[in-house]
Amino acid sequence: MTTEILSDLLVRVRQFVDEEVIPLEKLLISRPWAEVEPLLNQKREVVKDAGLWGLALPVEYGGQGLTLAEFGRVSEVLGRTPGGHYAFGCQAPDMGNMELLMHAGTADQREQFLLPLTRGEIRSCFAMTEPEHAGSNPTWMSATAVRDGDEFVINGHKWFTTAADGASFAILMAVTKPEASSRHQRASQIIVPLDAPGFHLERNISVMGEAHGGWNSHAEVWFENVRVPAEYLIGEDGNGFALAQLRLGPGRIHHCMRWIGICERAFDIMCSRAARREVAPGRQLGAQGMVQAWIAESRAAINASRLMVLDTARKIDAEGVYAARDEISLIKFFVADVLMQVLDRALQTLGGLGMSDDTPIAFWYRHERASRIYDGPDEVHKMSVARRILQRYQ
Amino acid sequence: MTTEILSDLLVRVRQFVDEEVIPLEKLLISRPWAEVEPLLNQKREVVKDAGLWGLALPVEYGGQGLTLAEFGRVSEVLGRTPGGHYAFGCQAPDMGNMELLMHAGTADQREQFLLPLTRGEIRSCFAMTEPEHAGSNPTWMSATAVRDGDEFVINGHKWFTTAADGASFAILMAVTKPEASSRHQRASQIIVPLDAPGFHLERNISVMGEAHGGWNSHAEVWFENVRVPAEYLIGEDGNGFALAQLRLGPGRIHHCMRWIGICERAFDIMCSRAARREVAPGRQLGAQGMVQAWIAESRAAINASRLMVLDTARKIDAEGVYAARDEISLIKFFVADVLMQVLDRALQTLGGLGMSDDTPIAFWYRHERASRIYDGPDEVHKMSVARRILQRYQ
Amino acid sequence: MTTEILSDLLVRVRQFVDEEVIPLEKLLISRPWAEVEPLLNQKREVVKDAGLWGLALPVEYGGQGLTLAEFGRVSEVLGRTPGGHYAFGCQAPDMGNMELLMHAGTADQREQFLLPLTRGEIRSCFAMTEPEHAGSNPTWMSATAVRDGDEFVINGHKWFTTAADGASFAILMAVTKPEASSRHQRASQIIVPLDAPGFHLERNISVMGEAHGGWNSHAEVWFENVRVPAEYLIGEDGNGFALAQLRLGPGRIHHCMRWIGICERAFDIMCSRAARREVAPGRQLGAQGMVQAWIAESRAAINASRLMVLDTARKIDAEGVYAARDEISLIKFFVADVLMQVLDRALQTLGGLGMSDDTPIAFWYRHERASRIYDGPDEVHKMSVARRILQRYQ
Amino acid sequence: MTTEILSDLLVRVRQFVDEEVIPLEKLLISRPWAEVEPLLNQKREVVKDAGLWGLALPVEYGGQGLTLAEFGRVSEVLGRTPGGHYAFGCQAPDMGNMELLMHAGTADQREQFLLPLTRGEIRSCFAMTEPEHAGSNPTWMSATAVRDGDEFVINGHKWFTTAADGASFAILMAVTKPEASSRHQRASQIIVPLDAPGFHLERNISVMGEAHGGWNSHAEVWFENVRVPAEYLIGEDGNGFALAQLRLGPGRIHHCMRWIGICERAFDIMCSRAARREVAPGRQLGAQGMVQAWIAESRAAINASRLMVLDTARKIDAEGVYAARDEISLIKFFVADVLMQVLDRALQTLGGLGMSDDTPIAFWYRHERASRIYDGPDEVHKMSVARRILQRYQ
Repeated sequence: MTTEILSDLLVRVRQFVDEEVIPLEKLLISRPWAEVEPLLNQKREVVKDAGLWGLALPVEYGGQGLTLAEFGRVSEVLGRTPGGHYAFGCQAPDMGNMELLMHAGTADQREQFLLPLTRGEIRSCFAMTEPEHAGSNPTWMSATAVRDGDEFVINGHKWFTTAADGASFAILMAVTKPEASSRHQRASQIIVPLDAPGFHLERNISVMGEAHGGWNSHAEVWFENVRVPAEYLIGEDGNGFALAQLRLGPGRIHHCMRWIGICERAFDIMCSRAARREVAPGRQLGAQGMVQAWIAESRAAINASRLMVLDTARKIDAEGVYAARDEISLIKFFVADVLMQVLDRALQTLGGLGMSDDTPIAFWYRHERASRIYDGPDEVHKMSVARRILQRYQ
Repeated sequence: MTTEILSDLLVRVRQFVDEEVIPLEKLLISRPWAEVEPLLNQKREVVKDAGLWGLALPVEYGGQGLTLAEFGRVSEVLGRTPGGHYAFGCQAPDMGNMELLMHAGTADQREQFLLPLTRGEIRSCFAMTEPEHAGSNPTWMSATAVRDGDEFVINGHKWFTTAADGASFAILMAVTKPEASSRHQRASQIIVPLDAPGFHLERNISVMGEAHGGWNSHAEVWFENVRVPAEYLIGEDGNGFALAQLRLGPGRIHHCMRWIGICERAFDIMCSRAARREVAPGRQLGAQGMVQAWIAESRAAINASRLMVLDTARKIDAEGVYAARDEISLIKFFVADVLMQVLDRALQTLGGLGMSDDTPIAFWYRHERASRIYDGPDEVHKMSVARRILQRYQ
Repeated sequence: MTTEILSDLLVRVRQFVDEEVIPLEKLLISRPWAEVEPLLNQKREVVKDAGLWGLALPVEYGGQGLTLAEFGRVSEVLGRTPGGHYAFGCQAPDMGNMELLMHAGTADQREQFLLPLTRGEIRSCFAMTEPEHAGSNPTWMSATAVRDGDEFVINGHKWFTTAADGASFAILMAVTKPEASSRHQRASQIIVPLDAPGFHLERNISVMGEAHGGWNSHAEVWFENVRVPAEYLIGEDGNGFALAQLRLGPGRIHHCMRWIGICERAFDIMCSRAARREVAPGRQLGAQGMVQAWIAESRAAINASRLMVLDTARKIDAEGVYAARDEISLIKFFVADVLMQVLDRALQTLGGLGMSDDTPIAFWYRHERASRIYDGPDEVHKMSVARRILQRYQ
Repeated sequence: MTTEILSDLLVRVRQFVDEEVIPLEKLLISRPWAEVEPLLNQKREVVKDAGLWGLALPVEYGGQGLTLAEFGRVSEVLGRTPGGHYAFGCQAPDMGNMELLMHAGTADQREQFLLPLTRGEIRSCFAMTEPEHAGSNPTWMSATAVRDGDEFVINGHKWFTTAADGASFAILMAVTKPEASSRHQRASQIIVPLDAPGFHLERNISVMGEAHGGWNSHAEVWFENVRVPAEYLIGEDGNGFALAQLRLGPGRIHHCMRWIGICERAFDIMCSRAARREVAPGRQLGAQGMVQAWIAESRAAINASRLMVLDTARKIDAEGVYAARDEISLIKFFVADVLMQVLDRALQTLGGLGMSDDTPIAFWYRHERASRIYDGPDEVHKMSVARRILQRYQ
């Protein structure tokens, strides 16, 4: 895609986001999902009519074949409002599930589970984290899937299964080869339709004061003797960890660019307030040195973040996820940190207004705090990247 | 009060908080105020029976005559759970209003408004901040109270009027002397019963996703030609700013010690998790160096905070608010910063659990963020204390 | 220049730096300049023989016509050791003076002053900062150059005139048009040969314990009725500030990339120590979580810095200094901050060794602290970039 | 000592420091020790005449019997200038050696080594850290002292033996019981006269560009078959580590209060500059918000530091070193961090002047950086205090 075509696409996406999605923002923040979903789904139809659907998909799935670095630019623009990715059909966790099935799914799995996802007809979820084990250690889990004839019999207890409420199926991480010598080769990923007997959604966890439902839910769920056909296994038996790692690469780019979109919007709100809010007649808030420092430091940090993420995306495009694994860890904690700092400064600049839900800042302040935790806490990424670096010195 | 008596008192208060109030914590965080209020009011009766009511009050109002430094120690213990101060009848903003009326109220004002407050029969609020003006500048406001015979006619628009919903009266800050040459002598504080015609609660502002009601509300309110008797003026005409400054001294101690109580509880939750949560079989989270750094740095910062606040309280006790105004500004931003750092580290240590409402960490993370804003944003305190220091060098 | 040619060039420069210049490092750090200069000058001859001289110069001055972004990559490699830039003839402040004379010098000025500089035959200095005025305000100075017939008569007191000791000439900033209405149009830049009567070097200022001489000097100097020909004026009368701004663009790239070179070397020393130093038998320092955090955070910050600076260099190459002035300010404080953090972490990792001069870390720790001050303190850049951003919101 | 007597003492000490010692400061920073020593020794005589000698000593050694908390206040005042402690005869490492010998020395050791120290007639050093082992692990060393009849035969290689150059004796840490099962009971502390055959000072290590001699030296030394009488062993055989721990308690108070003295002086210099330095005609540097933030944050942090250290000193006075070991670790890293931050801000406020040796800021900036390293790096203290805290949660 030439620079001109991409620029033009970004302008169109941005215009759509500003005119169609941002007006729904306040509803999305304050009302139950069931109330907002139909409105967002209407927007999806307009997106499709405008030829902007599936920007993250390859051509053969109705997409436009953007590289990861190109889609990253789109993801930033969508990130400017909480419903942006959903309106364009490339929201987590569905996007990650689509990438996984495109990469490792069988023809049948693609037909049955992937295609309806790409068309936005159903939703899905990813069930990995367990309350009994630290989420920071993805090789340690209790959920099991035991082969019984042509089926797997699944038992497990998961939580923070994002978007499980209302999802048609889960991709579940469970131990299938407990005897494997390497702890990285014990688990597999299996598709589990959520209308299967034995599946039970215990609660939508109250997160930051809100027990959201639907796409916004973070569910605690049980799998009790749930039976699925053996052909619902994704990829090779025991390669669940490897597939999860693979998933993280592009997913990290999507998330980081989304965070940068949030940063840009927050920066915009902060500067707008600083430039116009008077602290005394004729004296703007933005004339204060500490506020100026926040603005300049935020501008530098956001620029740095974007350059790092796009550089990483280009490396993934050119050399693959494995070659870029250091960079993928680095952008995770670097950009999450920048995100939370920018939000904190924006909130402080807005004062009481920043605490309120009259702007999206407080929504991001509380919910995007998870950015430093999910997909591996920052600390785990710091440890692992440092260890790899130190190995080269031994 | 001897050290032994104070220690004994603190033990009793702590035991009560742990056994009676913390069990209500989850309700307080997740349910509407109307549902929680009767339960907390029951606890208040038990507090009274135990002779622990009114610990912040002088003897003549049924209290125990603690110094500010002594009550600070109590406030820390009460701060360990969101309902602590309410259960003991010394919650903001009522406590500040009581202090104001004890200090500057007339006999009639005390009889009519103060005494029911001290007995916990009614609630009150403090209406100062206006949406149209920066809260960081307490001398700049549009609300007016115009003398008309024996009455004031009040017009104004306020927000973040904490606890207005259900309050019996407000103490309102309004301009009564617009012609005064000094901007510090234009406003007055006036008692306004909230059943007066012309008062209108427009909304309980949604703050961090929650439009709380009752004591937890942050209301946007209108005063439209509200009439109150002239004798509802508190103190001298035009001394509203001076009274507000006075109010801030003890209030700062109450708040800071409450924040330290939150810190201690968060520290406790963090250490407990770090000591017991395994990140791999037999390997505790607390064995990680970065977590150890958080623990040690938090311990040091909390200790430092407590020593500073109690030192400031003793100075106020001995020399008065004016002599201690630098220290009062310093503890404001120092302890608020420590508070938010400790909460952030505790949340990160807990991971997904920290984002959930299964502990009080996420509640404090989102709502105590206001600590860096209310009573003057940190930046304003930094500027004012620095300017006073620099004057000594000129 | 193709990517391959540039890569090959960088390999050759790096090999030279590692093999020829780093061995002189300890001398450069610990011995007087007079002792080190002849050794470095020998290296210059080897550089010339290797065809690596003048890499920052255009073809017409014997250079290789690298773009600013390309030379930035070279500057990083040279920055790995304190004598790198000198050995290759592109050291500050001579490089900035060369750029200025190439841009704005007359044919005679180039012949007489520029050409010997490009050949490394003489040294020069830049006299701008005055002890009586804040260096952060480049429009406020007392030095004057008064036209008297065919001459300027110069009077002024300057300090931190880097490399003045032993320089052949200074480029001096002095007020020539005190009556100009704009404070940005009062000063001019004038060439002053330092053997002119009336010039006096008062002292080589002791900086961080060391009153270095020669190229390493930071001199305090006086100009007392110094007379120079009127044709030594550079550019238009009154455009001294504009020329100084222009100078800062490429100079910022040189400096920032040099700092990144320092960061990479410090990172290398830190990791090498962390990987090999045992804190107990069989247990490496690098196994500690806090050290791992430093390594990962440093890696991320250095990568971010390089991407930002090269992006800025490309923008200057494509659109000029004025278009990139925001970015030029942003990289100044961003990279200086990263530099000092990386050095601080490296020093701490090395412990007592880090305090010693057995590695270059302590040298950089003390002398590169100036990076946050010269060319405008970080705070000034933050203020000016924030003000420009805020203007767009009004 | 009553508050009044202490206040009076502090006034007298401060006056002496300001009038007699600060004038020598610039010499101490810039000239060899041999040149400064006689001048400081003259001041010692004046101190003695004024009855201010030995303020840290008990009455029986000619001191005034101050508690640790009381002497802490004195140490702060002395810390205002680099020569303060030396002029009053309570400088490290001699003070620590005196405390050790008073606590654990035999009558003969006291007579021969302690008394001349208390009178300021000789200097001593403490030889513990070895280049081959991490200083952060005080139980791991190679130096040995082997009993041979009535003598110990000592072999070892030490560095950062502060003040070894010119010292009369060292207190040496060496392994005497390599077979002890606990690694905490293998080493002993032994007095070694430095004129003993086999002792060799290899070099005064160049630290931050300066290979200081005399009291300011940090020496690398060898002990090769050095023989000392067996009765030069201090305390029990194998209790070297325990004695070192004991030494750290009061030493930490001395150091921390000295650092606070440095902070106060730096704060004073910073504020004085900010109040008076104009960045434009009529506009003071101190009017800038970022500078105001530094001033306010520094004021808060210094106050917090002092309260913590004095609180720790009182705990040591009342309950002993062991009971206060958490606090002793906490103040180490808390105050060292505050110290370096205050110095960094002061330096930045001063700009180029801050880099120069025209004020003591640059001296402290480079040499007090060691505060985060010696007596155990901050990270080790954080780890050990966190581990002790976590043990209480298991």
